[in-house]
Amino acid sequence: KTAVCYLMYQSRDTVAVLDADQAGATAQSVLGFGGKVPVVATVGEGVALGAELAIVGTAPAGGGLEGNVREEVLECLRAGVDVVSGLHVFLNDDIECRVARAATGARVWDVRRVEGPFPVSKGDGCTTGARAVMVAGTDCNVGKMTVSAELSRAASEAGVAASWAATGQTGIILRERGICIDRVVSDFVGGAVEELMNVEAAGKDLVFVEGQGAVLHPGYGGVALGLLYGVMPDCIVLCHVAGRDKLKRLETPILPLSEQIALYERLMAPFKPSRVVAVVLNTHGLGEAQALAEIERAREEAGVVVDDVVRFGCGPVLEAVLAHTALR
Amino acid sequence: KTAVCYLMYQSRDTVAVLDADQAGATAQSVLGFGGKVPVVATVGEGVALGAELAIVGTAPAGGGLEGNVREEVLECLRAGVDVVSGLHVFLNDDIECRVARAATGARVWDVRRVEGPFPVSKGDGCTTGARAVMVAGTDCNVGKMTVSAELSRAASEAGVAASWAATGQTGIILRERGICIDRVVSDFVGGAVEELMNVEAAGKDLVFVEGQGAVLHPGYGGVALGLLYGVMPDCIVLCHVAGRDKLKRLETPILPLSEQIALYERLMAPFKPSRVVAVVLNTHGLGEAQALAEIERAREEAGVVVDDVVRFGCGPVLEAVLAHTALR
Repeated sequence: KTAVCYLMYQSRDTVAVLDADQAGATAQSVLGFGGKVPVVATVGEGVALGAELAIVGTAPAGGGLEGNVREEVLECLRAGVDVVSGLHVFLNDDIECRVARAATGARVWDVRRVEGPFPVSKGDGCTTGARAVMVAGTDCNVGKMTVSAELSRAASEAGVAASWAATGQTGIILRERGICIDRVVSDFVGGAVEELMNVEAAGKDLVFVEGQGAVLHPGYGGVALGLLYGVMPDCIVLCHVAGRDKLKRLETPILPLSEQIALYERLMAPFKPSRVVAVVLNTHGLGEAQALAEIERAREEAGVVVDDVVRFGCGPVLEAVLAHTALR
Repeated sequence: KTAVCYLMYQSRDTVAVLDADQAGATAQSVLGFGGKVPVVATVGEGVALGAELAIVGTAPAGGGLEGNVREEVLECLRAGVDVVSGLHVFLNDDIECRVARAATGARVWDVRRVEGPFPVSKGDGCTTGARAVMVAGTDCNVGKMTVSAELSRAASEAGVAASWAATGQTGIILRERGICIDRVVSDFVGGAVEELMNVEAAGKDLVFVEGQGAVLHPGYGGVALGLLYGVMPDCIVLCHVAGRDKLKRLETPILPLSEQIALYERLMAPFKPSRVVAVVLNTHGLGEAQALAEIERAREEAGVVVDDVVRFGCGPVLEAVLAHTALR
């Protein structure tokens, strides 16, 4: 996910993709985007192509540093290539990595490392005067980060001073700042979100905040709700994958969109009348006719604007946000 | 809160209460319980009475170690008295405390210190075969810990093998075990709850889990929901303070009980048909007639069993739990 998103947004900075299984191909031929970026088999080839920085683009189960990835990270550091990692395990704490860095002075950025302390939230939300939009989801891995980035870019292009706050490792790498919210001590999630959001919102009229997980998720519900209450959004955009009816890798059903919307609005009701103003439907992998049919079906079910902003542009969803936040 | 709860349950172990403002009184005369435990003005008096262990019974704003409390903790450690602390700041990390301990070998237990790592929850709940009961609340400081302890004791007395899991500092001190859930990294709250609950549930038929905060709380919603999904309870007991209509120290309204119940059941619906089977109404401070009137009013509103288990005993609430979990 990290590697793919980086290529989607930053392929111009990328000299090579390290993946022995696909060596010889290009990013474009494997992913359908990323242009002529070559896929190489060894760290040495990447260095020869001028690599100054390596991003750990995989997320192995458990978030550890093992096998090939460990070897490749050590090779990079020994070659003087800086390493960016979103692993749960911190490279800065790894003795072998420290030894490897010492000789060359290569730097390590552990993206998930969270600096505190943060306050306990009092529920004040964004205090800069900007409007805050929560980009929530019905599950993990539905496109919340991409939607946050796309809506922020589209709003800026439409003349609205906008920004977005990255709350997960991929977004933080792309944005070169943010806080990995799922690493914050649970008592301080809301306070951390507020600090991050207020930094991003400074001097802006609109700030999108990338959600994590989903409220109705057994593993991530707490993180998602803590994030929502940190943001105290003026409105919510809900991301969903077309056709997905169970949580990823679990047997838990994903409730219908209409019920999800009602739940989010219920959870916000004691604090402010925050509405879900649009659903972004991820139609990746569907043909165009089927994608349009799924969007229409979701629109009928949800009763709000529905669109796939990556496929068809941000127009209608952004309009709904701007109308609801009285910025247009 | 910590000091008061300790006196409520463990006054027999207590040789003195340290509180210069009330020195000369007894616990009974100040609190209405705690018997003849004397209130003293200095650590020296406590030591003279045979104190071997001191509990930091206050929770100063910010959770720091300042002023009088700092001086008293240092005096205890220098006198060889062990110290138990539920402060956010860890005494084991405090240089002055380390120096003070070194000479006497006095020990420090930082109750909020959490040992990990914990797994990410998959939503499996209690896996020992015991039934799990979530003791949730409509706010902080409503009595969730006390209700957990009381229901567990009453169930045991009724012949049901029962236990409870302490998730906050006061409960952990009383129970001499537990995990301070609001100190767990947000991603691992559910996993930590599962580990704790399964330890408490081993060999039991019923385990009560102390809730933290409230789902509809701006600062603690995420912790409360993460806890709920860790427990995946068979049923829920909801604690509420009679007459409280706003969150403590905040302007946020507390929704009516019927709506709170519907929300908890909605949040559980994708996972299992978990019901709120009883409301425990904290009527502390009300006269008996008024307490009974409030209970009756709440019963009409909530549509479930309502009682004050501290004041009137656990009978009806425990019956509702046992009936719902098919243990009676």
